[in-house]
Amino acid sequence: MKAMVLPGIGQPLAMESWADWTETADHVVVDLRAAALNHRDVWISKGQYAGLRFPIILGSDGAGYYGDREVIINPSMAWGDDSRCQGSGYHILGLPQHGTFAEKVAVPRENILDKPSHLSFAEAAALPLAGLTAYRALFTQGELMAGERVLINGIGGGVALFALQFALAVGATVYVTSGSAEKIERAQALGAEGGISYREEEWGKLLVKNAGGGFDLVIDSAGGAGFGQLLRAANPGGRIVVYGGTQGAITNLSPQLLFWKQLQIIGSTMGTSAEFAAMVKFVTLHQIRPIIDQEYSLAEANLALARMDDGAQFGKIVLKISS
Amino acid sequence: MKAMVLPGIGQPLAMESWADWTETADHVVVDLRAAALNHRDVWISKGQYAGLRFPIILGSDGAGYYGDREVIINPSMAWGDDSRCQGSGYHILGLPQHGTFAEKVAVPRENILDKPSHLSFAEAAALPLAGLTAYRALFTQGELMAGERVLINGIGGGVALFALQFALAVGATVYVTSGSAEKIERAQALGAEGGISYREEEWGKLLVKNAGGGFDLVIDSAGGAGFGQLLRAANPGGRIVVYGGTQGAITNLSPQLLFWKQLQIIGSTMGTSAEFAAMVKFVTLHQIRPIIDQEYSLAEANLALARMDDGAQFGKIVLKISS
Repeated sequence: MKAMVLPGIGQPLAMESWADWTETADHVVVDLRAAALNHRDVWISKGQYAGLRFPIILGSDGAGYYGDREVIINPSMAWGDDSRCQGSGYHILGLPQHGTFAEKVAVPRENILDKPSHLSFAEAAALPLAGLTAYRALFTQGELMAGERVLINGIGGGVALFALQFALAVGATVYVTSGSAEKIERAQALGAEGGISYREEEWGKLLVKNAGGGFDLVIDSAGGAGFGQLLRAANPGGRIVVYGGTQGAITNLSPQLLFWKQLQIIGSTMGTSAEFAAMVKFVTLHQIRPIIDQEYSLAEANLALARMDDGAQFGKIVLKISS
Repeated sequence: MKAMVLPGIGQPLAMESWADWTETADHVVVDLRAAALNHRDVWISKGQYAGLRFPIILGSDGAGYYGDREVIINPSMAWGDDSRCQGSGYHILGLPQHGTFAEKVAVPRENILDKPSHLSFAEAAALPLAGLTAYRALFTQGELMAGERVLINGIGGGVALFALQFALAVGATVYVTSGSAEKIERAQALGAEGGISYREEEWGKLLVKNAGGGFDLVIDSAGGAGFGQLLRAANPGGRIVVYGGTQGAITNLSPQLLFWKQLQIIGSTMGTSAEFAAMVKFVTLHQIRPIIDQEYSLAEANLALARMDDGAQFGKIVLKISS
């Protein structure tokens, strides 16, 4: 099989011919038709991730054929017995196990599910990691209910866009933030009620004023110095779910605001097999189609990684893999 | 009636004779036999609280007679309809309404409950505000279950000691922190399994090692720069309930630790009428007796405030009020 292989930290991926994987009692081999990128792939290629090993085939997201069956892959592996948190053996497809930037991938038998029939392979490949993360963050950890007001801090990435689509599907009212006016407009075209630039001073207070009220649920992957604005924007009794920390440590969190408003700040990452299955069912039920930013060929994976690293994307970056 | 009145910011309380309160359709008048102090009283006397007005009779905690009936007072008023958070009309006895540092107090009819018969008036007066705060923090917000491991950050104050006693009553294993070795020893004498000084470097990690494991529930009223240690000490999937912020803003909170450990940081303050009733029932069922640090007469209220301000107490500071 052909695979785009990361030879070491900071190096470009290189197309190599590797021996095909072999099916075992536990593992199936999927003939991939599409893969998708996540920030994780960029961080691993830069050496900013735990448990590095080389050479490695990156890629957590994929869809393709298992025999005649059209399948989508759950990248979440060995979660463990406790639904509240992953166990110590937990890992994600694409490190330490070889991932989906290849013609074939071997995954545990229970990690393939039927591809939703309304999705192309490219769309299906865009779904797994980001869709799962958004689903757990919104519904399991965030306990989103119909009619609630949701704020998504930083729109444009895969998880944030799924959070927007999933929240709209259950009848929530959604606002977004971005550093880009264009991304806010695109989110509004998808159904967001409005948005604000997180570059504005005191944007939390301003947004509550502009939006005619605060937010029951806030979804964040930034952290950093701006996190305090999320506490301002949250309604009393509200929840702030954090699934990332691209802006680093949260540096000015007021305990008084936290306890007086009876807020909850809830960490969330990835999800269980049950959540993955529920997410795929949810996407099928609501006929949700992932937003694709751009498609590349497998051989163009380095261009795709560069685009992800730029942060200018709106939606998932997909690699199409020909048979 | 005699009352210890705060004439203005930074002034000592002064004993004054005021007209007795009059019972109305909505309000009863309680003949107080004991009151108790909270940090709130110190902060108000220093002007460090919202909604100040003078002259004011301080005091949120009290027990006494309503006619022949021995009663305890719920200091939590006009919570509102949403159990998740208090409404905008919410207030606490002792500001803006005159409080319990007096021979009599007028409170809404629904805010008196039968005094648990196993408690003296002094013990009953020690219970309301701190007991309610601890109860909501542990059980409603913290969802404590029997057999879980609890860490109480900063032992010695009223809420922290009730949290210790309540958690032990449901079969939790409890560890504490303090800056004082003596306070840790006293907590152990009450049933805590062990403790550590929060002045130690990296005490969170050290405590987990010493205690043979981390904590499912952490109770905090400090915030500040040391808050990061609580995330280290928490088990994956654990909850950190924050009911105060004596050390100011939380300045170094790692989003990565938060989401990878799937932690929850939950604000909590005071509680509903239903929680107050449940707390009094719980204290009666488990025959819990509040820890009293020291008793003063009503006329000695300034000494009592000074002791509270010192922070050296272990347990509640009570004012006995003679008939």
